Amino acid sequence: MSGGRLIGVGVGPGDPELLTLKAMRALEEADVVAHFAKRGNGSNARAIVADRLKSGIEELPLFYPMTTEIGKDDTAYRNAMREFYDGAAAAIAAHLDAGRVVAVICEGDPLFYGSYMHLHVRLAAAYRTEIIAGVTGMSGCWSAAGVPIAQGDDVFTAIPGSLPEDELVRRLREAAAVVVMKLGRHLPKVRRALAQAGRLARALYVARGTMPGAVVMPLVDKTDDCAPYFAVVLVPGWERRP
Amino acid sequence: MSGGRLIGVGVGPGDPELLTLKAMRALEEADVVAHFAKRGNGSNARAIVADRLKSGIEELPLFYPMTTEIGKDDTAYRNAMREFYDGAAAAIAAHLDAGRVVAVICEGDPLFYGSYMHLHVRLAAAYRTEIIAGVTGMSGCWSAAGVPIAQGDDVFTAIPGSLPEDELVRRLREAAAVVVMKLGRHLPKVRRALAQAGRLARALYVARGTMPGAVVMPLVDKTDDCAPYFAVVLVPGWERRP
Repeated sequence: MSGGRLIGVGVGPGDPELLTLKAMRALEEADVVAHFAKRGNGSNARAIVADRLKSGIEELPLFYPMTTEIGKDDTAYRNAMREFYDGAAAAIAAHLDAGRVVAVICEGDPLFYGSYMHLHVRLAAAYRTEIIAGVTGMSGCWSAAGVPIAQGDDVFTAIPGSLPEDELVRRLREAAAVVVMKLGRHLPKVRRALAQAGRLARALYVARGTMPGAVVMPLVDKTDDCAPYFAVVLVPGWERRP
Repeated sequence: MSGGRLIGVGVGPGDPELLTLKAMRALEEADVVAHFAKRGNGSNARAIVADRLKSGIEELPLFYPMTTEIGKDDTAYRNAMREFYDGAAAAIAAHLDAGRVVAVICEGDPLFYGSYMHLHVRLAAAYRTEIIAGVTGMSGCWSAAGVPIAQGDDVFTAIPGSLPEDELVRRLREAAAVVVMKLGRHLPKVRRALAQAGRLARALYVARGTMPGAVVMPLVDKTDDCAPYFAVVLVPGWERRP
């Protein structure tokens, strides 16, 4: 093992105040700060910590070769993403081999649907690694909405909006409390699935949860089909309040 | 509305460094800090922030009248808990009516299986209320274990260990990624359910996730049936790594 150290840093759902003290310390200790972004868009994680970066810190932006242009089950997509993560891991390994501390900043929590996981599985066996848990995007959303999401014996399920409609219906029927994530272009399908599962009336739409311009509304009141990728639908559980 | 303000403050899974900057600010602003505890045990949430409390701050300990002594479906239990939460809300309301800021500190995230929810539904309509999302106990556990829990199209499910064995089996078969929470005395049943669902081999046992004396091990290597209430079992998803 080299003297280098890899830190996966959860920076929370968007509000810079939802950074943890531990994440602050990691930004202080880091020699290099790496972040994922869509080329041309800038990194969401970087925007959250922009005011906390040491001046002159070395940055390592990792630009996805694509995001949703081609299907996820496409071999070309999978190969391109594998090559991208291999290259990103190699770039980080070069810093670690030189004894540097590399902080990979991640929206939300690094090991909960985060791109950091792809680096972790490539590097954790060979380098000292630390994970700093973060506040998830979904926690940010139900907190902003002031909605108790799950209690007691409730089963809680997080469902990607990308699933097929019939599977969404089945999952929505099964769980007491649900978050449908990664809404984006899937909103019309998710709305239909909620109606079919008999859960549309309780569903809330939340966009930009902890950020300026946050939107919280009953989904039945949302008349258009436009939702950002990170918007969610909450179906609160806890129907047996004492 | 009075000048008082109620803040539900998530203080994270145990490591005091996993407090957010926003939680720190709430502790600074608070006139009164309230916390739930089992009588005689001291509050877990209070232990997490012990070094951060302003000296001389007024504290309002809320002692559960019982925890697991009688069954949850028992009418006596439900009545006793309802009375307890009514009384706790009234005690807090008295402070709010006097114009004070009351911070209710909560392990993990206030609206995710937290006792704070019982106060929130009693007070939020009548008083200014703010929720500060926190790092959940489960995020603390998979981060301590360094285990990527869910990715891409994975469905993630959090299951209370208290569910009946046949329901556990069904839920364990259904979800890609699972956390079984509130393990405690349910461990033998959860182990049997995992075996029946064919998911025992991937299961990890995690106790005291982000705290001193953390335990992380494959569940198959755990030979005894002793688990603290807050221990969890993780069954990681992400079986289709690119």
